[in-house]
Amino acid sequence: MNTLLLGSSDVDENAEMTKVIDAVELAFGAFERGDTQMPAKSYIDLPQYNGDFRSMPAYLDTGEWDAAGIKWVNVHPDNPDDHDLPTVLGTMIYSDPVTAFPLAIMDGTALTMKRTGAAAAVATEYLAVEDASSLGIVGAGVQSYTQLEAISEVRPIEDVVVADMDESRIDRFVDAFGDRFDVRAGSISEAGHCDVLSTVTPVRDPIVDLDDVAEHTHVNAIGADAEGKHELTDALLEAATIVIDDHEQCTHSGEINVPYHDGTLTDVDIDAEIGELVVGATDGRVDDTGVTVFDSTGLAIQDVATAHVVYERAMAGDAGQPYDLVGVDKSN
Amino acid sequence: MNTLLLGSSDVDENAEMTKVIDAVELAFGAFERGDTQMPAKSYIDLPQYNGDFRSMPAYLDTGEWDAAGIKWVNVHPDNPDDHDLPTVLGTMIYSDPVTAFPLAIMDGTALTMKRTGAAAAVATEYLAVEDASSLGIVGAGVQSYTQLEAISEVRPIEDVVVADMDESRIDRFVDAFGDRFDVRAGSISEAGHCDVLSTVTPVRDPIVDLDDVAEHTHVNAIGADAEGKHELTDALLEAATIVIDDHEQCTHSGEINVPYHDGTLTDVDIDAEIGELVVGATDGRVDDTGVTVFDSTGLAIQDVATAHVVYERAMAGDAGQPYDLVGVDKSN
Repeated sequence: MNTLLLGSSDVDENAEMTKVIDAVELAFGAFERGDTQMPAKSYIDLPQYNGDFRSMPAYLDTGEWDAAGIKWVNVHPDNPDDHDLPTVLGTMIYSDPVTAFPLAIMDGTALTMKRTGAAAAVATEYLAVEDASSLGIVGAGVQSYTQLEAISEVRPIEDVVVADMDESRIDRFVDAFGDRFDVRAGSISEAGHCDVLSTVTPVRDPIVDLDDVAEHTHVNAIGADAEGKHELTDALLEAATIVIDDHEQCTHSGEINVPYHDGTLTDVDIDAEIGELVVGATDGRVDDTGVTVFDSTGLAIQDVATAHVVYERAMAGDAGQPYDLVGVDKSN
Repeated sequence: MNTLLLGSSDVDENAEMTKVIDAVELAFGAFERGDTQMPAKSYIDLPQYNGDFRSMPAYLDTGEWDAAGIKWVNVHPDNPDDHDLPTVLGTMIYSDPVTAFPLAIMDGTALTMKRTGAAAAVATEYLAVEDASSLGIVGAGVQSYTQLEAISEVRPIEDVVVADMDESRIDRFVDAFGDRFDVRAGSISEAGHCDVLSTVTPVRDPIVDLDDVAEHTHVNAIGADAEGKHELTDALLEAATIVIDDHEQCTHSGEINVPYHDGTLTDVDIDAEIGELVVGATDGRVDDTGVTVFDSTGLAIQDVATAHVVYERAMAGDAGQPYDLVGVDKSN
């Protein structure tokens, strides 16, 4: 009885974005209904290597299907310079909840990019203006590609404005998408005046102010992933309708963590969790004006939901490589 | 840059027991010195499938080497009858702590058996009489084999007495070891009167009483792995010198959990953690008489230490299958 191995290109090819968005939306809904189990991320801190490991186990039951697995992921910022490796590497074990058999081992790095883009798309679906046709990207690193890939599935995006201090990153982004969208470089403010903005930077001091966005812009705040990081000014957050993915994670290490801890924002400023929008407990956008912000920290259930899509499609298409990891011969 | 895949037979062949025992001993020592990181096991409970998942991440620095990884493991008691699968399945991701690169994915089921045997051997090394030549086994299931395999590395075992209600399990055990040891079936009391006894059963009511062991027997209590389980009577435990692997795990779900919770045993009855014996903070056996008990619950650092041995040996011997999971081409 084999376990399916899915490397990064297999994950990339089988994470069909429309299906991933649907699965992540179902995951947010299941989370809101209490049909998930997601123990708090546990950390192993290795200051001697300037890095850490995080384990993200989860189970979810969407009503249509259930799934379980764990992503083992890290942040090692010295990797690119010192070891010619990405800062973040991830590995996912995707398991059958009925028996715990490891159905698949897959690259968690590609998976993370897909599920992060999909989360922004779900938020954009509920929070952006209906006819949003322009998308701003602040920070054109590896996580920015799936923002456009996913958001363009839920809104008729035509124009894309990319802001980045590094021109080579902009060039790569334009190369990747120039044939499908009208992509151009621009300032942060030009990107921010699009109908939808995704911020995907590791900055610790905010770079997007209230003046930098249009009066109807929906912002997906993706970059903040640790205490002390934020991309949006307090003025922008205070003016915006704020939707988070998870209270514990967002207040601990999401976009709102700094103003939340200094008391600038409190729980009354958090308007909803994304799951409430999905199940209909809270309305999404109702007016043509008003800035909205989605604080995305990334939940383990997103990874498992995305792994479900990848696995099902890979099995249907004979992708990946079967491997006898467990050594159980069911023909006996 | 490849990740090494090691299936159950690869793990079995490369987990050289003398090296695994040394590594697990180093791990216990590192734990005692505070040179480990081991977040509490986190559980996902799936009562609808009568099962659970557990994530066991760990890092250890033995002084000679350091290592990191996570074991994702489960308990699904209906698996054998309903799905023709083992109750417990495990998968280990073994990572480079310097970069977090996933060095290996290996079967965690074989790994668990090896590291559990090795832990018993470390305890036996410190707690059994020096010339121990007889080993009793109560419960001849899958976890019993590595008890003999490991303990015979640290003591000159010749005679083995196996107690089990299921004769076919005894026959399989005799078939496996009859050519190397004088193995015979016996009662629990006959097994218990050996110099060393390992109890490896899932019972919830104790089956080994003080009368069932010799006045110098060292007992490795392996079976209890959940609240409410215990194999040894309170009388035996009260008379014995008790060494545990970890206070939190043992009092929660180890051999002592039931008498500890009803107040029969308290912290003063726990004589040492195994790491204290390893680093020399506490003496092991000093007298020719006296019953000793090792309460083994199994620590995540044992898994990572064993994975270290397996990986190093597999790399040296070109075992396993390299696989490009991450998709990082370091030749760029």
